[in-house]
Amino acid sequence: MEVLILNGPNLNLIGTREKDLYGQDSFEEYLKKLKETYTQINIHYFQSNIEGEIIDKIQEVGFNYDGILLNAGGYTHTSVAIRDAIAAITTPVIEVHMTNIMSREEFRHTSLISAKCKGSIMGFGLESYRLGLESLI
Amino acid sequence: MEVLILNGPNLNLIGTREKDLYGQDSFEEYLKKLKETYTQINIHYFQSNIEGEIIDKIQEVGFNYDGILLNAGGYTHTSVAIRDAIAAITTPVIEVHMTNIMSREEFRHTSLISAKCKGSIMGFGLESYRLGLESLI
Amino acid sequence: MEVLILNGPNLNLIGTREKDLYGQDSFEEYLKKLKETYTQINIHYFQSNIEGEIIDKIQEVGFNYDGILLNAGGYTHTSVAIRDAIAAITTPVIEVHMTNIMSREEFRHTSLISAKCKGSIMGFGLESYRLGLESLI
Amino acid sequence: MEVLILNGPNLNLIGTREKDLYGQDSFEEYLKKLKETYTQINIHYFQSNIEGEIIDKIQEVGFNYDGILLNAGGYTHTSVAIRDAIAAITTPVIEVHMTNIMSREEFRHTSLISAKCKGSIMGFGLESYRLGLESLI
Amino acid sequence: MEVLILNGPNLNLIGTREKDLYGQDSFEEYLKKLKETYTQINIHYFQSNIEGEIIDKIQEVGFNYDGILLNAGGYTHTSVAIRDAIAAITTPVIEVHMTNIMSREEFRHTSLISAKCKGSIMGFGLESYRLGLESLI
Amino acid sequence: MEVLILNGPNLNLIGTREKDLYGQDSFEEYLKKLKETYTQINIHYFQSNIEGEIIDKIQEVGFNYDGILLNAGGYTHTSVAIRDAIAAITTPVIEVHMTNIMSREEFRHTSLISAKCKGSIMGFGLESYRLGLESLI
Amino acid sequence: MEVLILNGPNLNLIGTREKDLYGQDSFEEYLKKLKETYTQINIHYFQSNIEGEIIDKIQEVGFNYDGILLNAGGYTHTSVAIRDAIAAITTPVIEVHMTNIMSREEFRHTSLISAKCKGSIMGFGLESYRLGLESLI
Amino acid sequence: MEVLILNGPNLNLIGTREKDLYGQDSFEEYLKKLKETYTQINIHYFQSNIEGEIIDKIQEVGFNYDGILLNAGGYTHTSVAIRDAIAAITTPVIEVHMTNIMSREEFRHTSLISAKCKGSIMGFGLESYRLGLESLI
Amino acid sequence: MEVLILNGPNLNLIGTREKDLYGQDSFEEYLKKLKETYTQINIHYFQSNIEGEIIDKIQEVGFNYDGILLNAGGYTHTSVAIRDAIAAITTPVIEVHMTNIMSREEFRHTSLISAKCKGSIMGFGLESYRLGLESLI
Amino acid sequence: MEVLILNGPNLNLIGTREKDLYGQDSFEEYLKKLKETYTQINIHYFQSNIEGEIIDKIQEVGFNYDGILLNAGGYTHTSVAIRDAIAAITTPVIEVHMTNIMSREEFRHTSLISAKCKGSIMGFGLESYRLGLESLI
Amino acid sequence: MEVLILNGPNLNLIGTREKDLYGQDSFEEYLKKLKETYTQINIHYFQSNIEGEIIDKIQEVGFNYDGILLNAGGYTHTSVAIRDAIAAITTPVIEVHMTNIMSREEFRHTSLISAKCKGSIMGFGLESYRLGLESLI
Amino acid sequence: MEVLILNGPNLNLIGTREKDLYGQDSFEEYLKKLKETYTQINIHYFQSNIEGEIIDKIQEVGFNYDGILLNAGGYTHTSVAIRDAIAAITTPVIEVHMTNIMSREEFRHTSLISAKCKGSIMGFGLESYRLGLESLI
Repeated sequence: MEVLILNGPNLNLIGTREKDLYGQDSFEEYLKKLKETYTQINIHYFQSNIEGEIIDKIQEVGFNYDGILLNAGGYTHTSVAIRDAIAAITTPVIEVHMTNIMSREEFRHTSLISAKCKGSIMGFGLESYRLGLESLI
Repeated sequence: MEVLILNGPNLNLIGTREKDLYGQDSFEEYLKKLKETYTQINIHYFQSNIEGEIIDKIQEVGFNYDGILLNAGGYTHTSVAIRDAIAAITTPVIEVHMTNIMSREEFRHTSLISAKCKGSIMGFGLESYRLGLESLI
Repeated sequence: MEVLILNGPNLNLIGTREKDLYGQDSFEEYLKKLKETYTQINIHYFQSNIEGEIIDKIQEVGFNYDGILLNAGGYTHTSVAIRDAIAAITTPVIEVHMTNIMSREEFRHTSLISAKCKGSIMGFGLESYRLGLESLI
Repeated sequence: MEVLILNGPNLNLIGTREKDLYGQDSFEEYLKKLKETYTQINIHYFQSNIEGEIIDKIQEVGFNYDGILLNAGGYTHTSVAIRDAIAAITTPVIEVHMTNIMSREEFRHTSLISAKCKGSIMGFGLESYRLGLESLI
Repeated sequence: MEVLILNGPNLNLIGTREKDLYGQDSFEEYLKKLKETYTQINIHYFQSNIEGEIIDKIQEVGFNYDGILLNAGGYTHTSVAIRDAIAAITTPVIEVHMTNIMSREEFRHTSLISAKCKGSIMGFGLESYRLGLESLI
Repeated sequence: MEVLILNGPNLNLIGTREKDLYGQDSFEEYLKKLKETYTQINIHYFQSNIEGEIIDKIQEVGFNYDGILLNAGGYTHTSVAIRDAIAAITTPVIEVHMTNIMSREEFRHTSLISAKCKGSIMGFGLESYRLGLESLI
Repeated sequence: MEVLILNGPNLNLIGTREKDLYGQDSFEEYLKKLKETYTQINIHYFQSNIEGEIIDKIQEVGFNYDGILLNAGGYTHTSVAIRDAIAAITTPVIEVHMTNIMSREEFRHTSLISAKCKGSIMGFGLESYRLGLESLI
Repeated sequence: MEVLILNGPNLNLIGTREKDLYGQDSFEEYLKKLKETYTQINIHYFQSNIEGEIIDKIQEVGFNYDGILLNAGGYTHTSVAIRDAIAAITTPVIEVHMTNIMSREEFRHTSLISAKCKGSIMGFGLESYRLGLESLI
Repeated sequence: MEVLILNGPNLNLIGTREKDLYGQDSFEEYLKKLKETYTQINIHYFQSNIEGEIIDKIQEVGFNYDGILLNAGGYTHTSVAIRDAIAAITTPVIEVHMTNIMSREEFRHTSLISAKCKGSIMGFGLESYRLGLESLI
Repeated sequence: MEVLILNGPNLNLIGTREKDLYGQDSFEEYLKKLKETYTQINIHYFQSNIEGEIIDKIQEVGFNYDGILLNAGGYTHTSVAIRDAIAAITTPVIEVHMTNIMSREEFRHTSLISAKCKGSIMGFGLESYRLGLESLI
Repeated sequence: MEVLILNGPNLNLIGTREKDLYGQDSFEEYLKKLKETYTQINIHYFQSNIEGEIIDKIQEVGFNYDGILLNAGGYTHTSVAIRDAIAAITTPVIEVHMTNIMSREEFRHTSLISAKCKGSIMGFGLESYRLGLESLI
Repeated sequence: MEVLILNGPNLNLIGTREKDLYGQDSFEEYLKKLKETYTQINIHYFQSNIEGEIIDKIQEVGFNYDGILLNAGGYTHTSVAIRDAIAAITTPVIEVHMTNIMSREEFRHTSLISAKCKGSIMGFGLESYRLGLESLI
C-alpha cells in the first residue's frame, strides 16, 4: 500500500514555529513513529512551499498510489489549481489539518479543496495524520 | 473510558433513507461491531430529532464522560444553542459527519459547531465514527 | 387515501392571534368543513411547536401516507433538519402558507424547505389547505 | 366570471421544450380540458414573449376581470415593471409556476412579483393552473 | 426648442392607479398646461410599456432634439439597455420621477440610468416634469 | 402582578459554566433574593433547552400575565418561531441578556427577537433581570 | 416666503476647488443673482463644515421657514443624525446636488438623507439650486 | 456619586418632535423628577448635536465620574470616534435608547458603540434613563 | 449551412455611437464582407431593441438553423427570459461581444446568458463575429 | 509572426483527465495539427503548474512576440500577479478556455485576468486555441 | 518648509489612554523632539475631536503649506467629508496611524481617506509621524 | 544590522513597465544609492515571481535578520501562505508599496499580509523603501 503525506507551505516549520498552535514535536520524529506503527503501509513524504510543485507531485503519484494525505496549509483557502489537480486524479485524497481551522480567522473557514477530497480530518494536532492513515485502511 | 455517540435529526434513518448518500448499513449493526472492536471503551448511544434534547444530553454527560462524538445533522448549520452547550462543558467533543458536507449544498458549508469542538472528521461514511473513537484514545 | 395536515409553531393560535394576518376562523372548524367536503380522503391532523416532533411525525407517516400538507410556520426559514426529513421520506410534501410570505419581512422570503417539496401554495388564508388537498387528487 | 390565463416568455413552447422540466402535454390541449371542467368560468388566454405586452394586457383586463393567473416565466425574477402593473390594478393576480423554482438556479429563488400577488402556486406542472382557478372560486 | 417627454411602463395610468402615490390629476391635462406655459418649447410626448420601444424612441430623437425628460418607471432599476441607449445619443437626458424613490422599496434605490443622465429630479409629483423643462432652458 | 422569568438553552448552567462570562452565582439563589426584594410581584420561573417548550410557555401565559422577562440564549439569534410567538400574544416581553452580545461573536450581534419585544436590557450580569422587573413596574 | 439654502462641508470652496467638477463660478455671485431673480422669496444662506451645526440650523428654522434647500455634501452619505433632524421638523427639505452623484464613486450612490426629503435635484451644477427654488413655489 | 446623562443629536427635541416615537413629555421635566427620586446621585446633564463635543465631554468626565448614560442618537450607528472615546476612558458607559432600535430601519440595527459599553437598555421611552441609573447603583 | 447573426439593443448604432468603444465601421458593410468570405454559409441577420422579439426570433430559427451568433447587448446582464429561450432550443448559440465586457462597469461582468451558450467570444471588435462563424465550421 | 501558447496548471493532463470536460485528444497532437495549418505562424508552447513560472514566461516574450494565447487554468480566478504581468507587457494576450467557465462552479465565474486581455474565447474545447490564432491574424 | 501635523478624535489622549495600543509617551514631548531634530521644517500642530474643525483646518492651510500629516483617528473609516476636503486642496496629505489598523477590528480595515492621500504610513507608534516628515523631505 | 529587501512578482520590471505608475528609475540604481546612504545597514536583495520562493526566503532569514522590507506585489492580496510565513518568523516585517493601493482597483484594497506585519508604508514610489529602512533604525 503506497501512501503520500503531502505538506504545503510553512509546514516544514512544525515544531519550530508558533508552538502554541502546532505543538513542540518536529514532523520528522512523528513521521518515524508513524512508519514504525504502520509497517504495512509504504509512507512517502513531500513538502514544498511552492503551489505548483504540490500540483506536480499530486499529478505524479495520483494515478498509482493508494492514498494522499494532503495538508495544503495556506493554499487550502486560495488554490483553485490544487483543487483541479485533486479532481483530475484517481487516487483518493484526504484533507488533513493539525488545527481546527473553523476556530481561527474568518478567511480560514473556507476550503476550496474540501469539496474534491474524499474526507477531511482536522483539529487533532499531529494525530490528524495518523487518523488519515487509519481512514485509508 | 466513557464515550457517548450522539446523533442528531434524521440519523435514525441511516440505512433506510437516501442510500446513495449514507450507504445501506443500519447504524445499529455498525454500533455493535464498534463495541466488539473497542472493548476498552464503554460506548453509549443516544439519538434525538429534538434540538433541546441533544443539549440536555450534552449537559448530562458533559462533565464526567471522556468524549462525545457528535453528529448534529441538520442542526450543525443552524444551532447556536448546541454550540453554547459544547462550550459550557468540559468533556471534549468530536464533530462527525458521514458525508463530505463541503461538496453538498452551499448552506451546509458553514458549521456553527466546529469552532467549539476539539476536532472534526467528515466524509468517511460510518467509518467517520471509528476514526472519532481512534482520536480519543 | 391518507393525508396528514402538519402545522408548525404558533399555528395552534389561528383564529386567536394577529387576526389581520390570519383571519378570525379557528383551524378546528375549518378542518371539520374540509373533512365533510373531501370524504374520499382520510385527513389526519397534527400540530406541534417543537421542531423535532415535526420531524418525528414526518418520519412516522412518510413512507405510507399519500401526502403531507406542511405549514412549518417559523421553521420554514430556519430548519435544515425538517428539510432533511422531507428529503428522506417517499411521501410527497406540499408546502402551505396562509399568508404571502413574500410580502412580509425580508427573512421570511427564504424557504429552506421549498426545494424538497413537490409544490408550494401560499397566500390564500385557510383556503391554502383546501388547494393543497386538491393538488393531491 | 371572467378569468385571464397570462403566460410569459417561452411558455408557448410547453410540450416542446425541455420535456423533463415541463412535461409532454401541450398547453392548448390542457386549456381545452380546463374549459370543459370549469364551465362556469370564462377562461381567456394570452401569451407573449414581450414584457411590455404583458403589462398592456394586465392593464387592459385589470379593472374588470375577476382574476388573472400569471405565469411570468423569466420575467418573474427581473421585472419591476410587471410588479408595478399588478400593484396598479384592482383584479386579484395569482402567481403560477409549473416547476418548483426554489429547487432550480439561485437567481430563480427571488420573485419580484410575488409580493404584489394575492397568492402563489408552484410545482404542480400544468395542474398549477387548475389550482389557480380553484383559488378564485 | 424640441423636447420629448418620454414615459415608461404604467405611467399611462397616472391619475387612475395608486392615487396616494401619484395624485389624482391625469397626465394629459397636466401636459396641456405645460404646453400653455412653455410656449417657446415644442413639447412632444410618447409613452410605452415596452422597453425596446423606449429605446427606439430615444435613438429616433436622440441626435436632433434639445432634451429628453425620461421617466423610465420600473425600467429605471433593471434596464442596462436603456442606459446604453442614453449613452449612445447626443441629446441630454433628464431623469424624472414623480415619487421619491429613495423612500420606497429597497430595490428602487438603485438607478441604472442615472449615471448616464445629465441630471435627476424626483419627488415633486407631476411638478417634477415642469422642473425638468426649467432645467433645459 | 404576575411575571414570568423565562430562560432558554444552557441558562440552567449559570454559576456552573464559563464563569468568566456569567459569574459564579447560581440563578436559584439570585431568584430567591429577587422574590424577597419585589414582594409585590408574583415571580414565576421556567427554563427549557427546547425551543418549542419555550413557545408553549409563551403561549400559555401570554394572554394573562403582566410581563415576561425572556432570556432566549442561543435561540435569540436563530428562532423565527419564538419571534412569532411573542408577536402573537398580548403580554409585553422584555428581552434580557446577562452579557453584552454586541462584544461577542459576529453571529450574536443579530437578534431576531428584539423587534417584537417591548424593550431590551443587556450586559449587567444577573442584575439584567432586576432591571427587567423594574421596567415592568 | 422664507427659504434657507444650507450648504454642507467643502461647499464653501465652490469656484475654487476641483473646477472640472463644480465649475468656476463662486457661490456668492450666484446667490446674488438668485436673490435678484426671485424677489418674492427671502433667501437665507448658511454654510458649515460641522455636521452638528447643520443640525442646529435645521432645528432652528425647521418649524417656521417655508423650505430648506440642503446640499449636505459628504454628510449626505454618512449622516443618520441629519436624516433624523429632517424627519423631526415640519419645514419641507429639498435635497440638492451640483453633480450627478450616481456617476461618481460607489459610496456616493447611497443617500441616507433622500428618504426624508420631499424631493431631490441633482446634476445641474449651480442651477440645481434654482430648480430647488422653483419647486417650492 | 457623580453621573452624567449625555444626549446626542436631535434629543433636545424630545417632547416636540415625532411624538408617536418619543412621547409628549419634555426631557427637562423628566430630568427634574429623576433628580428628586435619586437624591443620592449627583445627576449632570449635557446635550449636543456635534459629534466632537460629545467626545470632548466623554473625555472630560471619563476619568472621575461614576457612570455615563449615553444616548448617542444617530451617531450610534456611524461614529467610530465616539466608540474610541468610550474605550479610552475608565468610567463605565451605559448605552440608552428610548425606542427599540431593532424594530426601526435596517441601518439602525447596528450599533458601533455597544461593544465598548458596559450594558445597553432600549425601548422603554424616557424610563430607559431611570433603568440606566438603577443599573449604576 | 444556415446561421443567424442576432443583435440586441443599440447595436443598430454600430459605427454611429461611441466610436471609441465600437469603432467607425458600420455593421452593414462588415456583414457584406463576411458574406463574401464565407460563401458556404447562408448568413441571416436580425436586430431588435425589444427583448421579446429577440426571444421570438430565437424560437423561430432555434430548431432548424445550424448556429446563432448572439450579441444580446444590454440584455446580456439582465435577461433570464433570453437565457430560457436559449436553453429551450436545439441550435447551438455562440455569445458574441465586440468589447471586453470584463474591463467595463461592474454590472457588465455578469452574463446571465453565457451558461446556456456553447461558447463565448469577446473583445475583438467586429472581428468577434467572424471568429464566431469560424467556431461553427 | 511569433505566438506563444501558454498553458497553466493541470492543462498538461488534457486528454488524460476528466474526459467528459476536456475531451479525449491530447494537446500535443492538436498542437501538431495547428502548426501544420498555420504555417505562417511560429507557434511556441509552454506549460507550467507554477504561477511564478507563467509570469516569468510572460515577461520573457511579452515585449517581442506578436501574441500570447493564455489558458491560465485555475489561476484565472485567483492570480492578481498574472494580471499584473499581462498589464506590464506590450504583446497582446488572448484569454482562452476549453470549457464554458460560466456554466461551472460559482467561483469560476470571475476572471481576474480578463480585464487586461485583448479578448476572450471560451467553450469550444481545443478549438478555442485555433480561434485564438485566428483572432491574431 | 511649512508642515501641519493634524490629529483627529481622541488623539489628545496619547500617553494617557490604552497604553498597550499607543505607548506611554505623551504626544507633546514627542513633538518637541521632532522639532529639535527637523529644524529645517516649521512644524505646526492642531488637534480636534470635531470632524468639521479638521475640515476647516485642512482648507485653511491646504493651499500654502508644503505638507499635512493627518491622523484622522476614528474619522478615517467614516468621513466622506474629510476625503472631499483632501481632494479639494493642493497641499499633499500623508495618512499616518500609530497602530496597524489592519490587525484591529474589521471596520478599521477600510479607509475612506487613503485614496486621496499621497501615501500612508502605519504601525510604527509615534515614529509613524517621523517617517511622515521624512517622506516630505 | 542585516536587512532584506524582498520584492515579489513583476517588481523586476520597475523602470520598464507602466512608467506612469512606477516611475522611470530602475530598482538597481536606486538600491545602489540606498546602500551608499545607509552604510550602517547590510542591505540584501531578493526578487522572485514565485510565491513559494518568497516563502522560502522569508523562512531562511526570518530568525536571524533584523528586518525585512516586503513588497509582495500581486501576492499581497491573495496569499494566505505568505501571511503564515510572516507570522511564523521572529524578524519584523515591514510592508512596502510604491503606489497607493487604496486608489487603485477594488481588489487591491485588501491586504492579507498587513495584519502580520509590524507596519506598512505605501504611496511614495521608490522612496517607500527608504522610509522602510528609516523605520528599522
